[in-house]
Amino acid sequence: MKKQDIPDIIVSRLPVYLRALVRVQALGRQNISSQELGEQVGISAAQIRKDLSQFGEFGKQGTGYAINFLIGKLREILQVEHAWDVVVVGMGDMGHALARYQGFHDRGFRVAMVFDNDPAKIGEHVGEFVIRDTQEIGQAIREAGIRVAMVCVPAAAAQAVTNQLVEAGVKAILNYAPISLSVPAGVKVQYLDPSIGLQRMTYYLD
Amino acid sequence: MKKQDIPDIIVSRLPVYLRALVRVQALGRQNISSQELGEQVGISAAQIRKDLSQFGEFGKQGTGYAINFLIGKLREILQVEHAWDVVVVGMGDMGHALARYQGFHDRGFRVAMVFDNDPAKIGEHVGEFVIRDTQEIGQAIREAGIRVAMVCVPAAAAQAVTNQLVEAGVKAILNYAPISLSVPAGVKVQYLDPSIGLQRMTYYLD
Repeated sequence: MKKQDIPDIIVSRLPVYLRALVRVQALGRQNISSQELGEQVGISAAQIRKDLSQFGEFGKQGTGYAINFLIGKLREILQVEHAWDVVVVGMGDMGHALARYQGFHDRGFRVAMVFDNDPAKIGEHVGEFVIRDTQEIGQAIREAGIRVAMVCVPAAAAQAVTNQLVEAGVKAILNYAPISLSVPAGVKVQYLDPSIGLQRMTYYLD
Repeated sequence: MKKQDIPDIIVSRLPVYLRALVRVQALGRQNISSQELGEQVGISAAQIRKDLSQFGEFGKQGTGYAINFLIGKLREILQVEHAWDVVVVGMGDMGHALARYQGFHDRGFRVAMVFDNDPAKIGEHVGEFVIRDTQEIGQAIREAGIRVAMVCVPAAAAQAVTNQLVEAGVKAILNYAPISLSVPAGVKVQYLDPSIGLQRMTYYLD
């Protein structure tokens, strides 16, 4: 089956399985049933088995999944066996938090450069990084061959920054700006707008 | 149709429509077609019409949707006509960023209290807030009748904090900790783990 033929909803669950497996592995466990994994992630065992079966035969009747093996397979499928260099654009509070975030470690990402367009911020340090001028984005990304970016600029600036990133070869954008981005085919965007996340839930409140 | 009968995938798109409509409204526009709204959010016009039709007859053949009216309806459906008080637990970089985030303004949320369990942080100021001891969560939330929380603590602490929140009456949790949370029926969780967002995209990279 070709990569693009797998429904995106299935792909979206694989990182959640991977995260849970790594936690269980850290407890020293060797195997896990789809039932137990399901309880960990709040997804049915049947759904997990169906999702994973799209990519191969990873489990055994009776013993379940070998955790190390399945972690390796999921990292391979998600292409996070090695760390992707990532740029962060926009050094407000959220950009700062991402530049210093410890949670990319071992999950396939490494912040490589950070940018802002504010002359007062350019040249300042954030953690181990020196903030670079957004005017340098194109050249810096092309030279480094970077494919992944996080956008934390205000909504009004987000599309222009996105255009710069895409022009320079970025193919995956994690967008914190509260706006839908327009990107060409072949470029992926994921949205992390906290108000959207909250509004999805207030719908259900009594 | 009852609230719970509407598929969650439809509910998940309503905040995206609302965000786009507010942006278009700010440009002084009165009406918008489903076609144009679709281009703004990257969703087909047919899908938008179908989604909105679950909640009523909001558009007119020919003139499309009256923007003010539809914004009001979506705010009513999502229950964000008034601001919900929200607590933030965990005053690391991400918690700080959320406590100071300007993007909740006019989207239905207001940070009301912030908590941490680190004695060195308790009593410190973050923006307009004084960081309170997580031991006070239960009483503070019950007294204020708060229903919505954001969790920004390390993964190892997230389930215990969640249990405290749920016990105190919280029904909607935006979780930044990189772990799946277990909550009783009737409590909603949305996840904003940046590594998960990135891994969903690296799958597709060549």
